[in-house]
Amino acid sequence: MSKKYIIAIDLGGTNLKVALLDLKYKTKDREVLSTRSFLEKEELISGIVFAINRVMKYNGLDKTDILGVGLGFPGPVDTKAGIVHFLPNIPGWKEVRLRDILKKRTGLAIFLDNDAKIMALAEHRLGAARGFNNVLCMTLGTGIGGGVIIGGRLYRGFNNAAGEVGHLPINERGLSCNCGSSGCLEAYIGNIRIIKLARKEFKRNISLEELSLLAGKGNKLAKKIWRDVGKHLGFALAGVVNILNLDAVVMGGGVSNAGKVLFDSAKEALQDQAMSVQGGHVKIFRAKLGSDAGLIGAAIMVKEG
Amino acid sequence: MSKKYIIAIDLGGTNLKVALLDLKYKTKDREVLSTRSFLEKEELISGIVFAINRVMKYNGLDKTDILGVGLGFPGPVDTKAGIVHFLPNIPGWKEVRLRDILKKRTGLAIFLDNDAKIMALAEHRLGAARGFNNVLCMTLGTGIGGGVIIGGRLYRGFNNAAGEVGHLPINERGLSCNCGSSGCLEAYIGNIRIIKLARKEFKRNISLEELSLLAGKGNKLAKKIWRDVGKHLGFALAGVVNILNLDAVVMGGGVSNAGKVLFDSAKEALQDQAMSVQGGHVKIFRAKLGSDAGLIGAAIMVKEG
Repeated sequence: MSKKYIIAIDLGGTNLKVALLDLKYKTKDREVLSTRSFLEKEELISGIVFAINRVMKYNGLDKTDILGVGLGFPGPVDTKAGIVHFLPNIPGWKEVRLRDILKKRTGLAIFLDNDAKIMALAEHRLGAARGFNNVLCMTLGTGIGGGVIIGGRLYRGFNNAAGEVGHLPINERGLSCNCGSSGCLEAYIGNIRIIKLARKEFKRNISLEELSLLAGKGNKLAKKIWRDVGKHLGFALAGVVNILNLDAVVMGGGVSNAGKVLFDSAKEALQDQAMSVQGGHVKIFRAKLGSDAGLIGAAIMVKEG
Repeated sequence: MSKKYIIAIDLGGTNLKVALLDLKYKTKDREVLSTRSFLEKEELISGIVFAINRVMKYNGLDKTDILGVGLGFPGPVDTKAGIVHFLPNIPGWKEVRLRDILKKRTGLAIFLDNDAKIMALAEHRLGAARGFNNVLCMTLGTGIGGGVIIGGRLYRGFNNAAGEVGHLPINERGLSCNCGSSGCLEAYIGNIRIIKLARKEFKRNISLEELSLLAGKGNKLAKKIWRDVGKHLGFALAGVVNILNLDAVVMGGGVSNAGKVLFDSAKEALQDQAMSVQGGHVKIFRAKLGSDAGLIGAAIMVKEG
């Protein structure tokens, strides 16, 4: 019997999403678990195995129906060796040979990668980056992640660590960054910084969602904050575009929900800073696949082998 | 009769170098003309044709002996279409379809590219970047040029404009750059800026060559200037390395003659700023092929077709 389904798993800071997709990436079933139920390494591994078995059982499938399982993680992954180097928030998670472990426990083919790379793959094959050869896909959130498509293929670099556009430095004596360095783009436009700026301007706590809503309604303070974020973003992108002469930049993640005011400001700053040939060629798009990009990309990874 | 030779031409700001190489890139003959003898477009084209014919004649060769002619230019080139978009210092040089023109006038196969890309190709095939898959090659001079090797191949980007590492911005409210923007790396470490800094420190005019010599002899002021240049350079490279997870960075051109003090400072700044995985993996080398990189790379371009 031929293998007709793929199991996709996307581990985020809040949720562990599990989905069953067919070979055309149509979702047949899905489940969302709280990541908080997995407080340590063993629990998370067991939770993943349990979720895999359950999705098969509920859908009347067995191993022979499953082409493979694709998993995305919010941390550095050695995709060739099948190792998740570490996971923030999961104590004891260090250099876990997850592919071998899951293969043994489930008998299925297992594929792993970093979530930003998986998102890039999804947006390139089925989303906003479709048809473009050389693309940077960014996720704008607490962290600023990225995946680079070169010549239509996901570019990994030597350690599968390429794409860290959040740690492109934009000022020599700049803001301190979580990575231990300073001046990185993430220090300027990560969630935490935006919320801090907003609190200062509005003199109260304000969420990113509210800040986006307010900007959409024309609130001047909110628009000013998003324009500022866009300026830093466009400035950083100009450097990437000058070096890679990209066809497109695709931006997703929570921060990208700010929409037009953010994108317009980023485009303007990019055009101001980039060289004319490179700046004139590149297109800026909002990601298309939204929060499902991780699941779809994980499935693509399995199908493309 | 099989074709046994390649003609390589490297147009610089000062010299037009012409060489005859065999298929193993060994130089059989060479000639250096002053670029100043070519004051306009027609003169330069005629000069190139004349030089091609002369090098054949002096070596008792004819068209059937020549695999092709490779040419490198200090400006933007559309290598596929065979167009040199423009050349600084040559009036009237705009969108010249040089491949077709030279093909018609010489009857030979013609290959063109930008000189920084040709240098990258040469260093990758036969120089310091040999054996590395993902490499940035930089030329440090009046301008800061670059060529990117991805997966062992020269990466061009959509308009063959990739590699402009000199225009990676490193400060949001930074120094004005020749490109019309501000904050670019080139504004901080291009020849002109270094000479300006040196004049300020030494209170007299001082050449780059002297500044390098003085640093080599331990002069503190000179070393301080080169360390400063290295800091800006390493900071910028950290961004490229974080995004591309490169195996190596190779630096050539006049400024790189400053040697150890510059390289040590650049490496230190790079390690300070880059993420640990990317920074820990990348190697920094001085270019190996020196001022011949342009000729050798032009010949490689012909042989690799």
